[in-house]
Amino acid sequence: MQAKLQALLTPRSIAVVGASDHIHKIGGRPIHYMREHGYAGTLYPVNPQRDTIQGLPAYPSLDALPEAPELAIIVVGGGAAVQAVRDCARLGVQAAIVIASGFGEAGAEGRRQQREMVEAARASGLRLVGPNSQGLANFGSGAIASFSTMFIEVPPQDGPVAVISQSGGMAAMVYGLLRAQGIGVRHMHATGNEADVTVSEMALAVAHDPDVRLILLYLESLVDPAVLAEAAAVARQRGVPLVAVKSGRSDAGQRAAASHTGAIANEDRAVSAFLERHGIWRVDDAHALARCAPLYLRGWQARGTGLVVVSNSGASCVMAADAAQPLGLAMAPLGAATQAALAERLPGFAATANPVDVTAALLTNSGLFGEVLPLAAADPATDLLLLDIPVAGMGYDVPRFARDAAAFATEAGKPIAVAAWQAPVAEAFRAQQVPVYASGREALAALAQLVHHQRRLRELEAAPPLPAAIATAATPATGSAGGHTLSEAASLARLAAGGLPVVAHRLCRSEDEAVAAWRELGGPVAVKACSPDVPHKSEHGLVALRLDDAQAVAQAWRAQSAALARLGARAEGVLVARMAAGAHECMVGAHWDPVFGPVLVVGAGGKYVEALHDTAVLLAPCREADVARALAGLRIAPLLAGVRGEAAADVAALCRVAAGVGEMMARGGGAIRAIDVNPVMVGAEGVVIVDALIEMAA
Amino acid sequence: MQAKLQALLTPRSIAVVGASDHIHKIGGRPIHYMREHGYAGTLYPVNPQRDTIQGLPAYPSLDALPEAPELAIIVVGGGAAVQAVRDCARLGVQAAIVIASGFGEAGAEGRRQQREMVEAARASGLRLVGPNSQGLANFGSGAIASFSTMFIEVPPQDGPVAVISQSGGMAAMVYGLLRAQGIGVRHMHATGNEADVTVSEMALAVAHDPDVRLILLYLESLVDPAVLAEAAAVARQRGVPLVAVKSGRSDAGQRAAASHTGAIANEDRAVSAFLERHGIWRVDDAHALARCAPLYLRGWQARGTGLVVVSNSGASCVMAADAAQPLGLAMAPLGAATQAALAERLPGFAATANPVDVTAALLTNSGLFGEVLPLAAADPATDLLLLDIPVAGMGYDVPRFARDAAAFATEAGKPIAVAAWQAPVAEAFRAQQVPVYASGREALAALAQLVHHQRRLRELEAAPPLPAAIATAATPATGSAGGHTLSEAASLARLAAGGLPVVAHRLCRSEDEAVAAWRELGGPVAVKACSPDVPHKSEHGLVALRLDDAQAVAQAWRAQSAALARLGARAEGVLVARMAAGAHECMVGAHWDPVFGPVLVVGAGGKYVEALHDTAVLLAPCREADVARALAGLRIAPLLAGVRGEAAADVAALCRVAAGVGEMMARGGGAIRAIDVNPVMVGAEGVVIVDALIEMAA
Repeated sequence: MQAKLQALLTPRSIAVVGASDHIHKIGGRPIHYMREHGYAGTLYPVNPQRDTIQGLPAYPSLDALPEAPELAIIVVGGGAAVQAVRDCARLGVQAAIVIASGFGEAGAEGRRQQREMVEAARASGLRLVGPNSQGLANFGSGAIASFSTMFIEVPPQDGPVAVISQSGGMAAMVYGLLRAQGIGVRHMHATGNEADVTVSEMALAVAHDPDVRLILLYLESLVDPAVLAEAAAVARQRGVPLVAVKSGRSDAGQRAAASHTGAIANEDRAVSAFLERHGIWRVDDAHALARCAPLYLRGWQARGTGLVVVSNSGASCVMAADAAQPLGLAMAPLGAATQAALAERLPGFAATANPVDVTAALLTNSGLFGEVLPLAAADPATDLLLLDIPVAGMGYDVPRFARDAAAFATEAGKPIAVAAWQAPVAEAFRAQQVPVYASGREALAALAQLVHHQRRLRELEAAPPLPAAIATAATPATGSAGGHTLSEAASLARLAAGGLPVVAHRLCRSEDEAVAAWRELGGPVAVKACSPDVPHKSEHGLVALRLDDAQAVAQAWRAQSAALARLGARAEGVLVARMAAGAHECMVGAHWDPVFGPVLVVGAGGKYVEALHDTAVLLAPCREADVARALAGLRIAPLLAGVRGEAAADVAALCRVAAGVGEMMARGGGAIRAIDVNPVMVGAEGVVIVDALIEMAA
Repeated sequence: MQAKLQALLTPRSIAVVGASDHIHKIGGRPIHYMREHGYAGTLYPVNPQRDTIQGLPAYPSLDALPEAPELAIIVVGGGAAVQAVRDCARLGVQAAIVIASGFGEAGAEGRRQQREMVEAARASGLRLVGPNSQGLANFGSGAIASFSTMFIEVPPQDGPVAVISQSGGMAAMVYGLLRAQGIGVRHMHATGNEADVTVSEMALAVAHDPDVRLILLYLESLVDPAVLAEAAAVARQRGVPLVAVKSGRSDAGQRAAASHTGAIANEDRAVSAFLERHGIWRVDDAHALARCAPLYLRGWQARGTGLVVVSNSGASCVMAADAAQPLGLAMAPLGAATQAALAERLPGFAATANPVDVTAALLTNSGLFGEVLPLAAADPATDLLLLDIPVAGMGYDVPRFARDAAAFATEAGKPIAVAAWQAPVAEAFRAQQVPVYASGREALAALAQLVHHQRRLRELEAAPPLPAAIATAATPATGSAGGHTLSEAASLARLAAGGLPVVAHRLCRSEDEAVAAWRELGGPVAVKACSPDVPHKSEHGLVALRLDDAQAVAQAWRAQSAALARLGARAEGVLVARMAAGAHECMVGAHWDPVFGPVLVVGAGGKYVEALHDTAVLLAPCREADVARALAGLRIAPLLAGVRGEAAADVAALCRVAAGVGEMMARGGGAIRAIDVNPVMVGAEGVVIVDALIEMAA
């Protein structure tokens, strides 16, 4: 880890610029927290108005300190904050946290001031957190450079979780949700506007902390995917799951993020593709970020999706069975021996198939859960367990249930989650470190996350290395200015040169050439005018399909040449191409994203692409297997697999084309701005690219 | 309401068969509850072992009572329960509740005993609740014929909500969730196995209770939709919303429901269609049942989907904006005047566009929420408000926030929901009767339910009457035995006779006839062998398409006649039909559901129907407008609307066909078992039915 980020996590000395004697002012709280939670380094309150701050000697300025502190917390705002950053830079402070708001997220003047801070910091190598940051808190070192009030609401306890967030509010909320579940938190860092230090960098820093076993992120923009990818790699190496919210998914959300942290817009599907590529699980809010923590931290490995539901309510059994499938869980088919063993312990009218309804017999035998759970878990079909208790209280020996579940959870080694909405019931399980949720649905969502996330991580472990490094260096202009579009013929030629299967075609410059081409190709042809000036031909009557006699071909040539002349478009000629016979129209697209580099889109093609929204997004370059996995999630997947006795489509060939297009983009290093292959006809054997457009960067 | 159901809700006298002196035994608890909660009628404990029960005189048998009680609670099990029901029937008791399990849900012997009880009851007009029922509780009359322990966990308070459930556990859980929100519950009824009295009947009964303002249902099977439809009509008339869980949606869930309450399987999409038709909002679990109650009970009318989000966290603003769209809510565009007014009250760096981030300025101005909410609500674009407070506590004047929100909620008349996960913060709002949720996402889900449910109810109010009454009387056999399939020609003829547009075609019995038909029809034809024995022709090579010369038609006739002969199938002839030119292949199907009668399916057609799953289900008969609404929700909707300059498809004509097929089914009264129109080609003007199969009942 970079030494200067170390100074953010475990600084030997900390100055607070704008320190307050009042322990509940923003300038007083960090000092108070650090003294309460055992910070062992040196604290330097800076305040020209006072001799002492909270009993510590105060200094009139940064310059007056006996040494350059490793870290400065800058509580003052506006121009004073800019000046403090300059002072830190000049004095050789390693890192500074700017707390104040009103900079990059708030208009031109704020943006200008933020730029000044960054320039001063960059010039001296000072690392800058914020501005508009709630600060950083490390309960391992006691360096609590944060003014969050949440440490008062829910007392801290050092533990295995790191929470890193642009938003201080979200950091605090996730911290609070974890602590409310009795889970200890080591790191709670808020990066605010990310003028310099990002969530990705902090994630990388904490991924190296040997005590961290779970990392939770909240991002509003992602500007340095390579750093986050490195953090994810370190975390995977250490078996530490990473879970992330990346908000600003919708247009409205993106606008809100821009005015919150000055966030730049990310292409949301590329974000998802990036996170999946690196085994980072994406969720949508703070509750979801915290949800699976108790399961991850138990260290359970979910080996499959076979779920057993045990409940004292038949209705909960029914609803859990209903909820399982949409979450990608399957009700485990319990074997006859298991069911017989269950039947011995349950009343005659109870259900021994999965879900297992222990019925109100639980009232007379409080040991039922303890007897039933190990029996169900011993079945080889069982991977996961839900214990759903919608009703308990008087007459129920809840402490016994919790003890039995805890013993089971420790011995069985299979993940279990409990659902109990009644606070005292939930508390009894929580006290025994058994993961507990307010509803069966939430418990199932957590179990599903565990199994699907772990499966993804195993996939990544087993996957061969990528065909080439991800190109992230070159970032071509993304506007339309300066670039140019290749004609269809030139685009097809370029794809063919890259080894991709394009339709047999001839570029013809005369009527005779066109007719000769039809004869040579044999069978029906498509005739399409070719001009770099007219990318969308069909809208201008420049496409004729299924022509199969000389006269029709000649006539098409004449009509299209005339149409091009009317449009005043450059005529490269007319393209005569064999009609492709593939059964399925698919598409492969690629474009250059300013953050993620080459992005690949594959899916249903033809003119309905936009209307059907049945495409998947991947980062390029990628493996053919990655494309296959993405295609398997589309609605066209069953069609490609073959319906009603049809032959299956050659999906492998489609994957080769997609991976090839992705690699072509990546190798282009930004020279190619976009490739649009649509349609590519997918038959039972092989695929043919029928139409293509390539946009080059300036 | 039926008088005997009245005896279940407000009985003048109640016998408890199997009464216990122990107030926490099942036979003791109802007596204890009724004496505690002011039941004013007469209680008759029946127990041959004792002289008194809980201080009341006990009787050795039902026969020994001084009068026939209006209601009997039967706590004894097995054969004794059957005998008690017989005794009740003989003595003229009006209604009985059988608590014990082990009947219809548990094997052949249990089913036999349940049948015996029902027969005894039906013979005398006794109404029977259960068996396997937790009982009924009416906190208006104090008739608490229930043994639920939940009344001990969360003390009852009479109020505006009725909870009716097959499952006692779910009834108790929903009751508990409501009470935990401070909401009073009038009715909590569990119908168990529904051998006689159903959830629908109880819903109808409570819909007439003038104090009930919200009805929540949990069903595992729906056997009497007409009764539930009547309940919904009464409730709509009174402005009482109905919300329902119908579980057993998946195969696994259905199996679990069968062993829980002996539930019969319902066709799940028909259930959804039924509930939507009657304005009953469908949700998926107990939490969701209770979720919207605080909003309904405030009496708010949500007039549109324009949402304003106000928060002290920018991140919550971003996530709420992201979450709104998938819920069918739109971020309200606040006008310039509103934004200017907001800017006057908020710090310079705060966001005044929607979402409104009041920032940490809330720490120094506790009145900010109170100032901002009315300004945002006054904007004409604002229909709904979310106040999201992910962080509060020390330094925040939470009681003030709650008071301000309460005052706003009362004055503004626009629905507002608060999100606050911290228990003390939530409690402050709850104490002020402001609807409060643990997460922004949940609050938005509740607001979305309110607006979409109320819109649906307004739609129903405005809709013209249905073309005919729903046919529910005749229920033809649904197995395949005994029915017969009409040939394609006969099926088309039947549809044509019903006024539906079928493709121009001729049924030909010779090669010459076939060729003559081609000449007569003009242009390319399809040739299809016609036999009632071979419904799926294309799989047997019995379809030839786009033939346009005499030789090809003749050859197809010979080949298909030979193929039919090989299959040993009856040959009705060969159908020669004009190739239809419509742009979109759609399908219309109809079948007879044993519970709901005629069910209509419309959507994407062709051979990919099963693979694409892009169809909608409606109950028939229905209005053309209902079909149009259903089609608008499909993925093909944008294709039908026209893509890239294509003409829009004639959706109105498709709706006429679908409504016509539905009406044909309904008029058939069960004589027609199924109609499968696939494809129906939908062009820019008009539609043509190209293929059809009709199955007749025996």
